[in-house]
Amino acid sequence: MTIKIGVIGTGAIGADHARRITNTLVGAEVIALTDVNLDSAHKVKSDLGLNAEIYPDGHDLIARSGVDAVLVTCWGAAHEEFVVAAIKAGKYVFCEKPLATTAQGCRNIVEAEMASGKRLVQVGFMRPYDSGYKMLKDTIDSGAIGEPLMIHAAHRNASVPEQYISPMAIHDTLIHELDVFRWLLDDDYVSAQVVFPRKTKYAHSKVADPQIVMLETKKGTRIDVEVFVNCQYGYDIQCSVVGEEGIANLPEPQAIVMRKNANLGQQLLTDWKDRFIDAYDVELQDFIDGVTNQNLTGPNSWSGLAAAVSADACVKAQESGQIEAIELPDTPDFYR
Amino acid sequence: MTIKIGVIGTGAIGADHARRITNTLVGAEVIALTDVNLDSAHKVKSDLGLNAEIYPDGHDLIARSGVDAVLVTCWGAAHEEFVVAAIKAGKYVFCEKPLATTAQGCRNIVEAEMASGKRLVQVGFMRPYDSGYKMLKDTIDSGAIGEPLMIHAAHRNASVPEQYISPMAIHDTLIHELDVFRWLLDDDYVSAQVVFPRKTKYAHSKVADPQIVMLETKKGTRIDVEVFVNCQYGYDIQCSVVGEEGIANLPEPQAIVMRKNANLGQQLLTDWKDRFIDAYDVELQDFIDGVTNQNLTGPNSWSGLAAAVSADACVKAQESGQIEAIELPDTPDFYR
Amino acid sequence: MTIKIGVIGTGAIGADHARRITNTLVGAEVIALTDVNLDSAHKVKSDLGLNAEIYPDGHDLIARSGVDAVLVTCWGAAHEEFVVAAIKAGKYVFCEKPLATTAQGCRNIVEAEMASGKRLVQVGFMRPYDSGYKMLKDTIDSGAIGEPLMIHAAHRNASVPEQYISPMAIHDTLIHELDVFRWLLDDDYVSAQVVFPRKTKYAHSKVADPQIVMLETKKGTRIDVEVFVNCQYGYDIQCSVVGEEGIANLPEPQAIVMRKNANLGQQLLTDWKDRFIDAYDVELQDFIDGVTNQNLTGPNSWSGLAAAVSADACVKAQESGQIEAIELPDTPDFYR
Amino acid sequence: MTIKIGVIGTGAIGADHARRITNTLVGAEVIALTDVNLDSAHKVKSDLGLNAEIYPDGHDLIARSGVDAVLVTCWGAAHEEFVVAAIKAGKYVFCEKPLATTAQGCRNIVEAEMASGKRLVQVGFMRPYDSGYKMLKDTIDSGAIGEPLMIHAAHRNASVPEQYISPMAIHDTLIHELDVFRWLLDDDYVSAQVVFPRKTKYAHSKVADPQIVMLETKKGTRIDVEVFVNCQYGYDIQCSVVGEEGIANLPEPQAIVMRKNANLGQQLLTDWKDRFIDAYDVELQDFIDGVTNQNLTGPNSWSGLAAAVSADACVKAQESGQIEAIELPDTPDFYR
Ligand SMILES: [Mg+2]
Ligand SMILES: [Mg+2]
Ligand SMILES: [Mg+2]
Ligand SMILES: [Mg+2]
Repeated sequence: MTIKIGVIGTGAIGADHARRITNTLVGAEVIALTDVNLDSAHKVKSDLGLNAEIYPDGHDLIARSGVDAVLVTCWGAAHEEFVVAAIKAGKYVFCEKPLATTAQGCRNIVEAEMASGKRLVQVGFMRPYDSGYKMLKDTIDSGAIGEPLMIHAAHRNASVPEQYISPMAIHDTLIHELDVFRWLLDDDYVSAQVVFPRKTKYAHSKVADPQIVMLETKKGTRIDVEVFVNCQYGYDIQCSVVGEEGIANLPEPQAIVMRKNANLGQQLLTDWKDRFIDAYDVELQDFIDGVTNQNLTGPNSWSGLAAAVSADACVKAQESGQIEAIELPDTPDFYR
Repeated sequence: MTIKIGVIGTGAIGADHARRITNTLVGAEVIALTDVNLDSAHKVKSDLGLNAEIYPDGHDLIARSGVDAVLVTCWGAAHEEFVVAAIKAGKYVFCEKPLATTAQGCRNIVEAEMASGKRLVQVGFMRPYDSGYKMLKDTIDSGAIGEPLMIHAAHRNASVPEQYISPMAIHDTLIHELDVFRWLLDDDYVSAQVVFPRKTKYAHSKVADPQIVMLETKKGTRIDVEVFVNCQYGYDIQCSVVGEEGIANLPEPQAIVMRKNANLGQQLLTDWKDRFIDAYDVELQDFIDGVTNQNLTGPNSWSGLAAAVSADACVKAQESGQIEAIELPDTPDFYR
Repeated sequence: MTIKIGVIGTGAIGADHARRITNTLVGAEVIALTDVNLDSAHKVKSDLGLNAEIYPDGHDLIARSGVDAVLVTCWGAAHEEFVVAAIKAGKYVFCEKPLATTAQGCRNIVEAEMASGKRLVQVGFMRPYDSGYKMLKDTIDSGAIGEPLMIHAAHRNASVPEQYISPMAIHDTLIHELDVFRWLLDDDYVSAQVVFPRKTKYAHSKVADPQIVMLETKKGTRIDVEVFVNCQYGYDIQCSVVGEEGIANLPEPQAIVMRKNANLGQQLLTDWKDRFIDAYDVELQDFIDGVTNQNLTGPNSWSGLAAAVSADACVKAQESGQIEAIELPDTPDFYR
Repeated sequence: MTIKIGVIGTGAIGADHARRITNTLVGAEVIALTDVNLDSAHKVKSDLGLNAEIYPDGHDLIARSGVDAVLVTCWGAAHEEFVVAAIKAGKYVFCEKPLATTAQGCRNIVEAEMASGKRLVQVGFMRPYDSGYKMLKDTIDSGAIGEPLMIHAAHRNASVPEQYISPMAIHDTLIHELDVFRWLLDDDYVSAQVVFPRKTKYAHSKVADPQIVMLETKKGTRIDVEVFVNCQYGYDIQCSVVGEEGIANLPEPQAIVMRKNANLGQQLLTDWKDRFIDAYDVELQDFIDGVTNQNLTGPNSWSGLAAAVSADACVKAQESGQIEAIELPDTPDFYR
């Protein structure tokens, strides 16, 4: 059985997912494309040699009977509309992050999905598909380090462009940690605090950099995340989980250890695209497999909502300098 | 285009490759199966839900017009026969190691392939498809460590069964190093010497363990490989390349670094099957892609011959205690 | 020239320092001893074969004309009294931490010392004498990582006895970090906050464990220190300094990397006494050299005061749950 | 009790040891000096402010009644003469390596010492006093890795001057390994073989570089040592002991791990003098303590002889390309 996929939004990420489905993954085929710029859709079709139809807009594409599943990879502001439409059409949908640009938008999706009676949505959080995070999750779940009590983490970029402003440290950068820690810990956040260390001279005027975000979970686990987006030295994701019996660290990306020029070391990545490149393949294959088996198991709409609510509280905490509550209902059974 | 594959030999490795092609890899389909035990072929067919025909023997399977490529995964003694037959039928063939059980058998295959005028054979050496070895090869080729002068390597198994005897340290264990160093260095061996350290108490009576194999290449690079198959502590593959400007090491397999029980450490593998598990996928995908593009680029018949000739010299060196010559003609242009 | 030293307090640490001076260090000799338990002083004298006089109390010892320098190693409550007396007698004094049990006590010592017109006091903070911290300090001072922006640190003990209660996490444990960060950063603290993660099941009822202490400095550097005194796995001191250009980590204690039992790892210390054992020698040798050269350069009274003031604010922050100010005048030129 | 020491040879190493005894070590004093260049002896005396007499030659110095122990730090060709003289005078002697320039010279010293009935000689092999080697020795002796079966080692210098020729790779470089492996393994060598890898372009015309020296011990342990004296990247001493149960590695020198410029690494040493700097202190302190206790426990004359005999065989193996026997009687009880 081959899953027939329609892609809404054929920009960089949409085109990349289409290529992945066509050349690398198994069990699916792109048969429909659309984009606000139809030339872009035509180009993807011809570049990949697809046997696909181009639709004038996402609603037409969703409506097409042969489409089993939809990829929503258009700009964020349109995500909610197409995800809800796909749900209403009873079709599976993989939506790139953010699920919606507001928490309310996410809530609307959750409501539509629960009303449909069936889990149809996977959100494009790829870190749970990274081999290192999977090992870390397995280690925690094995009980090897006992109950997690703290996480010390860091998300560092070598540098960011001038348009990157302080709230983007939450919405574009921390958002991945907000999702992945909930998954690692199987827990929800209750509060957030943000403090601003001395600013690096390498940061532009409109961004506070670095920032330290402190989260507390329902179980009382404390998380500190250093967000440092002009760290100069590389793209570096650190995660250390401190448990009652021991500590487990996210592995460094595989690298050659070299002795050279009076240095014993290994190269660090500098481009974020290289860090989770393999995880994108695994993530989308998992979506395809989930559709095939009629059982999605990846990041769901509730994860998307939780990330949105948490991010809003973090931005509020950036502005207030206070500890801000993160209010999220318990995860409904529907999403467990 | 989907490559139609026939599998000759549906034991453990054949069944595993069939599963791989069916569930994990793209661009190929198993349409024909045979085995000395036909029940085994039927079982693979039904386990994987294949739309495949079962043939009474390999020659019938090779003869079938719909088969584009053949996997030779039967017992070693029959490899030569079926590989030569596939070549004569003008079909691509992936042959598990050994290519043939004798150097002369490998020579026969090389001759048949050269006579056919077309590269048709890939040998199942998977290490060049391991992400770590690829990084190491890239590092050497980049010139980062300068010209390679030495390799220090080790191939260690936790333990081996009683039927494992001294020459198997070459034919079953070192054989992977014999292939991978040629590839890493782009060089050929000229001599081999084997010395026997003090024997571990954990070795059975019919195997000298550990052994140290020393190789010299045409360019003068010196290689020492510790082969230690009852090392107790794990399955461990080490490779350190010493160049004129620096040293590069094969990466350790990815693992969680943990602090626990007064230890700062990471788990080592104990089962060889886990070490190169990903490489098997990449290897066979590369074969499929090579067939699709009519351009095989993986380990070829000449590599198989080189490994066989080198292994014979190493076994002779085990027996003689002397430095034994390894005589191999220059690689023909056909195989470059 | 041999410095003549009197030891006030011959309990464990006093006896150990006397042994050090006698057997390991150069340039000094213990010629006077006292203790509230005179038998203890006699025992140290005879154990070490000292040519020393026993005095009925610290004041008599300080008064003795032949004594060049005094070690105050009696119980903390008596430190202030003897340190001030030594200063008034114009004698050098090495005082084990705490310099005094209250900030006011430390202030009294600072005033007496400044009134004397001469630097006479060294406080027993040994970490600046640890080879790893020295390397870290040198790295920071070299500019290799640029301006320090953050420190992530941890102070972990395998376990603590029942009498260890929450404020001791500051006064007995964090106190070392409070001193060493000021020295590393050449900066002062302005505020402290303490948060309490989920409590480990291994902690006794009267101690919150772990705790995270967050400090801000005058220059804006942010420090987070995990204090975890029942971490089970070992005694572990971590310090990572994040600068504008890179990150430098305190080295792990030297250890054998071993491959054994499917583990690639190194042993961690479990006893705090092993961690800084060498630093105690270097610390006291530096005091002796400072006395010899009439120029003390180690941790001074002002450091003792700063640690006391900071510790008080941290304890207040433990109790209040608020961010508490740390108010300390600028370091007087006298102490620079 | 203060040991009174006379120094024969006040060149670089002699002056350094005199400084060590005077400023850093405890329990000894330099009271006599001599050198072929008497100005040099006078300079050391005045630089260190010694209360010492200058003697016209080593025999006068040895004869002086107040001298308890002699340091022989003159040029190698004169070692034998003065060591034997010291023995005959019943005085302790610390002799820098080589103990003598020929194996026969070492035998003469051994005979003289045995005839004297008392262990009087320590040879200046400092590696057993290195903290890392001590840990490695302790690990082996603890049984943690089981019986040692192999050692893989390397001795690398960044570069050597033009006067460094092939046999110096043995006499000046490998000599330290020849001593330290005997001590680590508590075993003797029975044969040596040397092979010459492809030569680095950085080596001068009169030195084969790198070289690999292979040793076999009485117990059958096999040792391979890469000697690479123009390795460019640093001064690097590697030692990995492979035992029946696991593998233990000599620790890297303590260093700051840094993340900077897309590198996660630590600095390597480039100057050999930095590598064992601490070991020199410990070595000479051990000699002083041994004299004080009338019980020398460091490297002895027999170690010096063993190193000389082994080195001669290695040089012969360099020249012959053959496996050369190393013939050394069993260690006499006198030296156990
Ligand atoms: Mg994604
Ligand atoms: Mg294979
Ligand atoms: Mg102290
Ligand atoms: Mg020496």
